[in-house]
Amino acid sequence: MKIDSVDLFFLQMPESDPAYKIVRDTLLVRVRAGQCEGWGECEAAPFVSLASFIMPQSHETCRPINAALLGQKIQDPSDIYRLIDLARSSTGHLLQAPHAFSGVEMALWDVVGKSLDEPVYSLLGIKTVHRRLPYVVAPFGETAEETHARVAEMSSRGFHAVKVGWGRFGEGNLKGDREHLVAAREALGPDGRLFLDTGQIWKNNASSALRYRSIIDEANIEWIEEPFHPAATDAYSDFTTLMGSSRVAAGEHLHDVHSALKFLKESRVGVLQIDCGHLGGIAPAHEISEQVGADGVKIINHTYTSHLALSACLHALAGHAGSDLCEYPFNDSSLSWKISRNHLFAGQDGFISLSEGPGLGIQIDLDAVDSYSQDLEIRLSNRVLYSTPTAR
Amino acid sequence: MKIDSVDLFFLQMPESDPAYKIVRDTLLVRVRAGQCEGWGECEAAPFVSLASFIMPQSHETCRPINAALLGQKIQDPSDIYRLIDLARSSTGHLLQAPHAFSGVEMALWDVVGKSLDEPVYSLLGIKTVHRRLPYVVAPFGETAEETHARVAEMSSRGFHAVKVGWGRFGEGNLKGDREHLVAAREALGPDGRLFLDTGQIWKNNASSALRYRSIIDEANIEWIEEPFHPAATDAYSDFTTLMGSSRVAAGEHLHDVHSALKFLKESRVGVLQIDCGHLGGIAPAHEISEQVGADGVKIINHTYTSHLALSACLHALAGHAGSDLCEYPFNDSSLSWKISRNHLFAGQDGFISLSEGPGLGIQIDLDAVDSYSQDLEIRLSNRVLYSTPTAR
Repeated sequence: MKIDSVDLFFLQMPESDPAYKIVRDTLLVRVRAGQCEGWGECEAAPFVSLASFIMPQSHETCRPINAALLGQKIQDPSDIYRLIDLARSSTGHLLQAPHAFSGVEMALWDVVGKSLDEPVYSLLGIKTVHRRLPYVVAPFGETAEETHARVAEMSSRGFHAVKVGWGRFGEGNLKGDREHLVAAREALGPDGRLFLDTGQIWKNNASSALRYRSIIDEANIEWIEEPFHPAATDAYSDFTTLMGSSRVAAGEHLHDVHSALKFLKESRVGVLQIDCGHLGGIAPAHEISEQVGADGVKIINHTYTSHLALSACLHALAGHAGSDLCEYPFNDSSLSWKISRNHLFAGQDGFISLSEGPGLGIQIDLDAVDSYSQDLEIRLSNRVLYSTPTAR
Repeated sequence: MKIDSVDLFFLQMPESDPAYKIVRDTLLVRVRAGQCEGWGECEAAPFVSLASFIMPQSHETCRPINAALLGQKIQDPSDIYRLIDLARSSTGHLLQAPHAFSGVEMALWDVVGKSLDEPVYSLLGIKTVHRRLPYVVAPFGETAEETHARVAEMSSRGFHAVKVGWGRFGEGNLKGDREHLVAAREALGPDGRLFLDTGQIWKNNASSALRYRSIIDEANIEWIEEPFHPAATDAYSDFTTLMGSSRVAAGEHLHDVHSALKFLKESRVGVLQIDCGHLGGIAPAHEISEQVGADGVKIINHTYTSHLALSACLHALAGHAGSDLCEYPFNDSSLSWKISRNHLFAGQDGFISLSEGPGLGIQIDLDAVDSYSQDLEIRLSNRVLYSTPTAR
């Protein structure tokens, strides 16, 4: 079996989409090999990732990703590891490569899993799958009342773990910010698990962050996500020393194993958030979870788009016993939700289980893909470099 | 004065171009503000960098670079620093951003320099410009004779410093590799300064590199460039300990100040090679040279394209007293050469001086730009996102 085609679908959401403010577009990647078809998703700046697949060759070691993959043998996991190396060595000085490669790498695992009739976690050699409690995202509202309503809505839908964040939180209005946290805690109830995403608001300043400690403690926030810029490892280290490692989370920016392990060591965060759609796919996420092992660091998926991306992350991290949580994208009327025909739901126990289907276990809704797919054409010197394919 | 336009020129070389094997294409960026016009160059994967300028907005903090710049005030250097921050904060999760931004940042310095009638180094606050001896690149030939001829050709053109490299060097044929080095040294003469670029051939293995020590010493190679992958800082550290820091060079991959300083510290290389076309432009290169100071580390430009890119690097590093060398792109019939009407030549003393003209001091050859400019059109949902502009 060899890679017969790699097709790219650039999807945009209409402004009315409830997820529009969070993410406006996405790139789905379809790989066809023999009788099998696999899908993956690139999560960041999808248009630029698309360009990485179809760009003209730039120099000897800077080739388009498609050129590295088309026609290659794809039979079992060893082929995927070989293709990861091949893609890496043929995309020198293409900074976007890990983001772009993420989608096609997921699709390769999906193809091989379907061909061998095995779920991806099993292809990775994972024997025991650890279940995870979903936490959903409820961005702060304009007012504390609105924040209360948003968290209450999630609670009423059965979620006992909620992440709040963004808005103007952390800019200096401690009193106002406290009201939002108090409202969120009240709406969730005393036993709910509450998390806070501050979107790098304190840049590289641990003191600014520490001013918030009392209101964060009062609302019993389990961890604070991205208090600082990714490069501010000193601030992370200072903050984790005082707050405790397990109460600080970060990692969504990471795009390779090496710098991920380095970031973990230097920042001393106790919760590492891995996004397979940024990191280069499933294999590097799995490698991180293997290397970190069970030494007290929790590895959590970072996912804000589809359940295809969610499934990819959960397969990759399935063997990691260190954490019982997963970030759970839940916008049941959004594009991200609609591109798949099935979803990962919590069972009676409240925990998410992976689908036991082969590959990633997610069926893409081809009609939805076609309906959100944008008409895109790229012509270079009268040659068509890209035109929108059809999914159906 | 405000930024009226940012235009992108995607240039490709014909196969007959002598530089075709090294770099096949480039992206020039033209910024117009008031009566002034500035130019810059993105050096890596130009097509993907172009996409970063014109991509549709992806999420709240992932916007196209053009959107961050158009209409912004541009008067003096403080505006450039402000725009650097703005571009950084508005291109979250766009991995390609530093490479793409590099070209427009150079153009911004060029514009401000022209507007204030000052050379860029002076805008950076540099008082004393240090002259630099050019070294040119002569890739290994297929045979040692061919290597000899290539180096001799450069020597006959008056260059006393030459970098050889690539081919199959370092793959294991020590005897054959020795012949290439001996030929290069013979062609250059005993007093010439000889450098070796090994293009990451030994990956993360310092022992493999050390096997070459005797033939490297025999040929009196001043430094070895990129023996390992950029991530292999342990291998770098081991190798520099044994070879001496001053004999190991790397850094072309770097794309931000923070990781550059970190790389320098961990790898312990004594020669840091900075490419303004990768790093995000002139300001970050200048910042690195300021931070490193004169503590024994040599900071050298990495330049393999035009004299516009060369000039940008040399302005940025003009105040660094630590090194007397510059990498000098010299293919006088190549596209990279032809896109400018003037060039930086060595004076009687053999050293390169910066042009004293305002800005970067390089006049773009508009006819050459138009003749190499490719007809590119990108249409999204019947909207033209990009079509090739004219330079003239």
